Amino acid sequence: MINTKKYIIEKAERAKKASKKLGLVPTVVKNLALLKIAENILKNSDRIISENLKDIKNAEKQKLSFALIDRLKLNEKRIISMADGLKQIAKLPDLIGEVIEKIKRPNGLKIERIRVPLGVIGIIYESRPNVTVDSVGLCLKSGNCTILRGGSEAINSNKILSKIIYETAYSSGIPDGSIEFIDNTNRIIISEMIHLSDYIDCIIPRGGEGLIKYIRENSSVPVIAHGKGVCHIYVDKYADIEKAIKISFNAKVQRPGVCNAMETLLVHKEIAEKFLPIMIAEYKKAGVEIRGCEKTRRIINGIKFATENDWYAEYLDLILSVKVVSSIDEAIMHIEKYGSHHSDAIVTENKKFAEKFLKEVDSAAVYHNASTRFTDGSEFGMGAEIGISTQKMHARGPMGLRELTSYKFVVHGNGQIKK
Amino acid sequence: MINTKKYIIEKAERAKKASKKLGLVPTVVKNLALLKIAENILKNSDRIISENLKDIKNAEKQKLSFALIDRLKLNEKRIISMADGLKQIAKLPDLIGEVIEKIKRPNGLKIERIRVPLGVIGIIYESRPNVTVDSVGLCLKSGNCTILRGGSEAINSNKILSKIIYETAYSSGIPDGSIEFIDNTNRIIISEMIHLSDYIDCIIPRGGEGLIKYIRENSSVPVIAHGKGVCHIYVDKYADIEKAIKISFNAKVQRPGVCNAMETLLVHKEIAEKFLPIMIAEYKKAGVEIRGCEKTRRIINGIKFATENDWYAEYLDLILSVKVVSSIDEAIMHIEKYGSHHSDAIVTENKKFAEKFLKEVDSAAVYHNASTRFTDGSEFGMGAEIGISTQKMHARGPMGLRELTSYKFVVHGNGQIKK
Repeated sequence: MINTKKYIIEKAERAKKASKKLGLVPTVVKNLALLKIAENILKNSDRIISENLKDIKNAEKQKLSFALIDRLKLNEKRIISMADGLKQIAKLPDLIGEVIEKIKRPNGLKIERIRVPLGVIGIIYESRPNVTVDSVGLCLKSGNCTILRGGSEAINSNKILSKIIYETAYSSGIPDGSIEFIDNTNRIIISEMIHLSDYIDCIIPRGGEGLIKYIRENSSVPVIAHGKGVCHIYVDKYADIEKAIKISFNAKVQRPGVCNAMETLLVHKEIAEKFLPIMIAEYKKAGVEIRGCEKTRRIINGIKFATENDWYAEYLDLILSVKVVSSIDEAIMHIEKYGSHHSDAIVTENKKFAEKFLKEVDSAAVYHNASTRFTDGSEFGMGAEIGISTQKMHARGPMGLRELTSYKFVVHGNGQIKK
Repeated sequence: MINTKKYIIEKAERAKKASKKLGLVPTVVKNLALLKIAENILKNSDRIISENLKDIKNAEKQKLSFALIDRLKLNEKRIISMADGLKQIAKLPDLIGEVIEKIKRPNGLKIERIRVPLGVIGIIYESRPNVTVDSVGLCLKSGNCTILRGGSEAINSNKILSKIIYETAYSSGIPDGSIEFIDNTNRIIISEMIHLSDYIDCIIPRGGEGLIKYIRENSSVPVIAHGKGVCHIYVDKYADIEKAIKISFNAKVQRPGVCNAMETLLVHKEIAEKFLPIMIAEYKKAGVEIRGCEKTRRIINGIKFATENDWYAEYLDLILSVKVVSSIDEAIMHIEKYGSHHSDAIVTENKKFAEKFLKEVDSAAVYHNASTRFTDGSEFGMGAEIGISTQKMHARGPMGLRELTSYKFVVHGNGQIKK
């Protein structure tokens, strides 16, 4: 215990020290480092794949799920995509130093609100080794030092990736200590890390609900939580049926395992008899299991009954719960009660109802006549994202470079004193 | 224990419910409510003063410090100032609903980032009863519900103030439950409150270091911490001596008990022999106790030796530690090591050194040739403030209305689906 504490504090101290320098590194140095890292990742793809294979073999030995092993896997295509991500980040504008606001006061003080990095960001994540590369890329560009703590299942992949990253970064002029990788997979490290508020400015947990809940409840370092996505589509009575079918199908089926996929479909009673038979036939063709409320089951034969737990569920799978509602207010109340305030959509041709829904549904992203699947940094034009925040403080929804920054007030005077 | 839990959850549930409505209340209703509350506070000033007298008598019985009793005290002048604060807030622009950013995507999606309230804000505070009025004013204007938990020492004052506030607010069209006052002074309430992340979006603690530390370390609700202010003035070798004296005097003496007052004066060795004798003579006239480093004591006879603890100290009193440094780098290193990243100033006529200081000192507010005493919402043109954040996440420095908000993404489509 004492040793792990010493180990993590030493890393955190190095990162803290480096953060004083990284925030001042010129854009060109950061961009060249990002491009060089991309190049060296591509050059070393054979080594990366062979290290990744060790993780895959361990995972198979431990009989981990197919989905988890799939997330763990690195192949040529995925490595190219990681490198492309870095090149993309290098192209994005550098926001550090940006003057967000200028204020001139009657006493002559000139105040500027200037964008600065957050400082040191702790990333605690599970399985997917691309998180190592994506996170460092975004943090480096936004002048933030990172302390990376990946899961034990990806330890060999993360080790080789982080080694390539920090060796390349440091030889490209990035200050030593800017990227600290924790190669100790003891879980005690996490509980030490989330209490280092003297060194770490922010913790971003990425992983399962259990990990995120543990960190939110125990961290004394501020956390940006990426919670689950229980997303809804509400098909209003004034919906265009064709749009409703296209959008509802896309939101469930196009990629069911992600947080912005729909989990519950709400349908107005006056359109349900026309809409649901066609819609559910489409879903059945795609292999979607339907769990319906009493009214849904009266319209469609032979489907399972949705329990209270279904309304709260993030299936991340080809399962959908369906509820017929009597009004837009009932739909909104359902979303507020069971949803996770991630992404929710209304399909309607009625402008007033659309506005009501967009205003009253308290979610990070609210949609009118579009699929919830667009809640994503690159789809929102941010270039890249470190995740999707489901909290309201600091950042909400997709988090890009801007959401990884803070600001300081720079005050220019000529001798002003307070009267 | 079970009863206090039930008590606080009921209040939190009411606030959460009200927050769905308060965020949609029109500006005019909020402004009229603020003006009416101001009016009723003035009308009831006799009652307020007599309730406040109970707190003062209790405080005297318990032999609380003069400073604390002074903070507790309400008189006609202070009541007028609270009411003026509310009128001021009513005049500020309503930021809720503001379109912060518009993004048009190649697929035709129109995305708007729209300002929304945080939701429910828990304010945990000590002594000063004006916090009750100021906090509710700012939260109400920014569409946030408040749960107020003031200290036991001000319970009678807070009770009457909050009663006037919520009765007036509710009769002016503010939704029931928008302002919840906790009249139970059992400390267990705090530990319950900081775990209600299903109901409370943000906790703002205002009070002593102990309270803030406890909340930061234990809260599972996101916290905006208002930490201590160990502020510095660095008198550079290129300083204009007259400005340096005026600014250093003001920052220490004008109001020593506040967080933006200076606690440590750093002086370049090449100006120290000229500057310090005049400066310290001024301080002595004002009754300031000086604690100096070895070099300071070589220049000025008969002053105390500053210990390591002095460099970390937030005196909030007429005490000042003084250190002679060999370079601007030593000054910056000192500030980074011992400071609290609140407000720090350089006095110099050298532009390059000023820029270096403003860039490298990692504090919420950094000054060139001005007193640190300006770090304050109204001095920064925000109209009013709920406090000064010393953290980097969400808000840094003075927090006005804007810092009490979040945003949501509103996406307008015409049938877009993810490819």
